[in-house]
Amino acid sequence: MDKSPDRTRRHLLASAGLAAAAGLGREAFAQAAAPAPATPAERPLPPYVAWKNPAHLIQHTATTIETKRSAFGTSVITPTDRLYIRNNLPAPDVAIVADRDGWMLAVEGVKSPATLSVRDLKSLGLHTVATVLQCSGNGRGYFPTNPSGTKWQVGAAGCVIWSGVPVKTVVAALGGLADGARFITGTGGEKLPDGIDPLNVVVERSVPLTNLDDALLAWEMNGEPLPHAHGGPLRLIVPGYSGINNIKYVKRLAFTPGETQAAIQKTGYRMSPPGQKGDPSQPAVWEMEAKSWINGPAPEAGPVKAGWVQVHGVAMGGMNAVRRVEVSLDGGQNWKEARLVGPDLGRFAWRQFVLPVKLEPGNYQLASRAQDSRFNWQAEATPDNAGGYLNSGWRAHAIRLTVA
Amino acid sequence: MDKSPDRTRRHLLASAGLAAAAGLGREAFAQAAAPAPATPAERPLPPYVAWKNPAHLIQHTATTIETKRSAFGTSVITPTDRLYIRNNLPAPDVAIVADRDGWMLAVEGVKSPATLSVRDLKSLGLHTVATVLQCSGNGRGYFPTNPSGTKWQVGAAGCVIWSGVPVKTVVAALGGLADGARFITGTGGEKLPDGIDPLNVVVERSVPLTNLDDALLAWEMNGEPLPHAHGGPLRLIVPGYSGINNIKYVKRLAFTPGETQAAIQKTGYRMSPPGQKGDPSQPAVWEMEAKSWINGPAPEAGPVKAGWVQVHGVAMGGMNAVRRVEVSLDGGQNWKEARLVGPDLGRFAWRQFVLPVKLEPGNYQLASRAQDSRFNWQAEATPDNAGGYLNSGWRAHAIRLTVA
Repeated sequence: MDKSPDRTRRHLLASAGLAAAAGLGREAFAQAAAPAPATPAERPLPPYVAWKNPAHLIQHTATTIETKRSAFGTSVITPTDRLYIRNNLPAPDVAIVADRDGWMLAVEGVKSPATLSVRDLKSLGLHTVATVLQCSGNGRGYFPTNPSGTKWQVGAAGCVIWSGVPVKTVVAALGGLADGARFITGTGGEKLPDGIDPLNVVVERSVPLTNLDDALLAWEMNGEPLPHAHGGPLRLIVPGYSGINNIKYVKRLAFTPGETQAAIQKTGYRMSPPGQKGDPSQPAVWEMEAKSWINGPAPEAGPVKAGWVQVHGVAMGGMNAVRRVEVSLDGGQNWKEARLVGPDLGRFAWRQFVLPVKLEPGNYQLASRAQDSRFNWQAEATPDNAGGYLNSGWRAHAIRLTVA
Repeated sequence: MDKSPDRTRRHLLASAGLAAAAGLGREAFAQAAAPAPATPAERPLPPYVAWKNPAHLIQHTATTIETKRSAFGTSVITPTDRLYIRNNLPAPDVAIVADRDGWMLAVEGVKSPATLSVRDLKSLGLHTVATVLQCSGNGRGYFPTNPSGTKWQVGAAGCVIWSGVPVKTVVAALGGLADGARFITGTGGEKLPDGIDPLNVVVERSVPLTNLDDALLAWEMNGEPLPHAHGGPLRLIVPGYSGINNIKYVKRLAFTPGETQAAIQKTGYRMSPPGQKGDPSQPAVWEMEAKSWINGPAPEAGPVKAGWVQVHGVAMGGMNAVRRVEVSLDGGQNWKEARLVGPDLGRFAWRQFVLPVKLEPGNYQLASRAQDSRFNWQAEATPDNAGGYLNSGWRAHAIRLTVA
């Protein structure tokens, strides 16, 4: 998995001649710009995401980059240049976004299988949905058992708006589902390394067919063509499902009787008991659950002055809308209901919440807990699992605050 | 009004030492970056907005820059780096965003007048609203009478999300309104040129007190600290009112018995009959009305292939929500109802709409018209006015489409 910055830079340089071509977005804009400035505390970002602002990001590796708590803001939508990055394989050559409309998707498991271009898909329909995009391992850094993998805090998540065509519209245009379809299986268009069984490395995931009504093939995010680093030209969006199920550079969409045999599905991304390897008998990492965390006052911003403080954060319901959020100042002994703030972008989006509190000098442990529209409360603690997936426990996400 | 690029660049260079300071946003990121790349067809953007992407913008002058029709996308929110720019005066020095929380606002016309910092305002409350921000002269280029001023097409507008404190919360914290208050008057913090009566140049606008429940003092836009070019650290937002009423760098907020005597209010931004000068007896340019336009297929994208096409665009209701949008393919002889797409961000936001149509080869004249929740239809034509303001006529905004 050659993912050195040099290789990525070559991708960018290879596209330098394409800057004037239609359909090129941030990539073309970035390739001619100088590398992002770095303050002494910041490493420069790798070239493929040099258009993001390093001041708002925590770089774990060149392919695992999260948003700081303090950088989420309070305006609902996560700006694209602050959104986290997590790629399982090196991305396809950036040249694929020089002709976005020409990207091809093979659709199988329908009555009339066909290979459609993004241009074809755009003629079929247009739909827009806001979702929380969250890495399956977000919060892993808060498991006390120290599971292996990136030690994400809260920032491998964002709330973004997608535009594309509903998967069900594509299915209808191709004559409906073939008999026996039970899963939606998406395959990523990354180039696979030579000499390895493709099933061991391909990014191919299956989700239950119950997602047919919500799933989207998206070519746009936050009002601009989907950036290459986020899966452009085309990404499969499964609202409410964790990041890995939202296949970047999707090149094949199949309606299948069973789950894919790819390792990333069969043994990877399973809720395996600690110390055990993944296997298909264990639950897949699919649906997200109620979760919330506090973004302000941000821990990295240092001590706060005594007086009135607007404690704010974000809350999501996974598959359901957020019904209620509560905030505690004393590590969960007492709770007060917070107010939901700002426009409601639908059940798959997150909500901003706020609780005004008057704080005397001292030390506080701030926590939040969300309840979804089906009255499911955010867990106090997520059970340990070998992969460190889907940590939504409110206690682990609490923050300390010193008021001077 | 020294607004040469050189002067602006000096502003940027002056702030170069501040890049690591807290609170600096795109400005700090941009100042160390190379000038934006320009394709042969594009002029580089002036340095103060060099972080915007010139490929999506039409530059009229260094201070009047609009979004192309094709660049609005379909995801509801206008990305900040595609949002239009229109400044009446040179902006204050960019150094003011080095200490955003320290920006001071004088509040007058309340029981207990006070000067509050943005830090103080942030302790008072948090609210978020999505609005259409639209230059009062947007659409001026479509008036057949050729009024003087920037020939904006559709792109001096965007839909953005603001965070800040409600004006009514600030009023309540300062003991309530003083007796006799009938207007909300905001004053911009631009440095005024020497030797000219300040009333002739100051950006100071009054809006009726009826806006008290909706107005916001905003420090954040689209999830990040309000960029300096868009009025940061602090901007007065009057939802539903045209751009000029949304005071950038707001330094004074006064609740006044009458309208300000500043020229920009007294004689400027009036709905004056053609050929007449503005005076206070004429209606002020305040509330926006129902308006819509088609963004796709974009006229600049050239001919379209025969077959199914998703005709899409944006529709706003001004002070009211959008109730219905209709699309015509024949210049207004026949209309079909379009579908509203995507999350509803509230009555001051715009909605995306779409109508799937099967097009045979030929020439079409595509038009759209919006109806607000009070059953007001977008006008067929806006009456001529001397300033070329508030053009919302659907016929003027129609586009020609060639299907091959």
